[in-house]
Amino acid sequence: MPHIRIGNDLPGISGLMVERPDTAAPLNQLAEALLRGPSPLPRGERELIASYVSELNGTRFCSESHGAFAAAQLDGGLDVVTAVKTDLETAPVSPQLRALLRIAAEVQAQVGPVSEAAVKAARAEGAGDGEIHDTVLIAAAFCMYNRYVDCLATELPADRSYYTEGAVRIVERGYGSPR
Amino acid sequence: MPHIRIGNDLPGISGLMVERPDTAAPLNQLAEALLRGPSPLPRGERELIASYVSELNGTRFCSESHGAFAAAQLDGGLDVVTAVKTDLETAPVSPQLRALLRIAAEVQAQVGPVSEAAVKAARAEGAGDGEIHDTVLIAAAFCMYNRYVDCLATELPADRSYYTEGAVRIVERGYGSPR
Repeated sequence: MPHIRIGNDLPGISGLMVERPDTAAPLNQLAEALLRGPSPLPRGERELIASYVSELNGTRFCSESHGAFAAAQLDGGLDVVTAVKTDLETAPVSPQLRALLRIAAEVQAQVGPVSEAAVKAARAEGAGDGEIHDTVLIAAAFCMYNRYVDCLATELPADRSYYTEGAVRIVERGYGSPR
Repeated sequence: MPHIRIGNDLPGISGLMVERPDTAAPLNQLAEALLRGPSPLPRGERELIASYVSELNGTRFCSESHGAFAAAQLDGGLDVVTAVKTDLETAPVSPQLRALLRIAAEVQAQVGPVSEAAVKAARAEGAGDGEIHDTVLIAAAFCMYNRYVDCLATELPADRSYYTEGAVRIVERGYGSPR
């Protein structure tokens, strides 16, 4: 049961956002900028970073939601998302994306400078300042969204179709669009 | 040295925000909503939660900045901020604020439900859903801002007056206001 009263039956962050539109607005604007705004990283890769960090944090609602949003926008779909979460080292992603996901994992694990080795490895695969910045900020942001969802003990959806239906809306209309 | 090129000489998150106005805008809007928007918690107490979480994360730039912003808006000023960071149990804050700071520390420490005991203790001191929600989301947000600042290895200001000068601007004009 959530720690605060949520006057709707929506799961995860959705229920919190309907309950608190004042904080939902900037939270959605941030997600829109990070995951769909201008970036050298394709939207599917950004959603994959978000889902991977959420998986590392153990936040099932965000891991599954953003996994579905990634799958809808990545060649290879959900198989790639599952492979990354199962074993990043062997997952069928580009060397650059693998290096960026390693940076994201460092951001998830600790508050402190990403290792020089991880940054150097990403640059060796063609990542520039934009890719590194956006990876770090997406990973950092999901250390917020994950805590918001889990620390307040929100509920999971009854059915996994919730995530795939959400994906259609997000891909077509973006974060903060009406249901 | 920061991991990415920052084309200005501003320290901490300030340099990143000038470099990347696209992500700075929603990051500032979120800070404005959380720390200065409508809430049952006074602005000084919200800044103290932000500073305390930043201290626990070891992010000196955010701990000192928001410590200065808290000090400017709290009775007792910087002495209270320092006392909270030195020993929360004996710091001269209200029982409710102490209970909320304990919740914030749980959010900082792990991605998972805040303990029933911590929520119950805060409610016993008069905290309602609004206070608990806002505390959790502020603490979660600083797990993002702190990572953004530290994982990219940004610089500290040369002089501590940077923080107190920032406090004048934030208290008067808010987040995202021009320097």
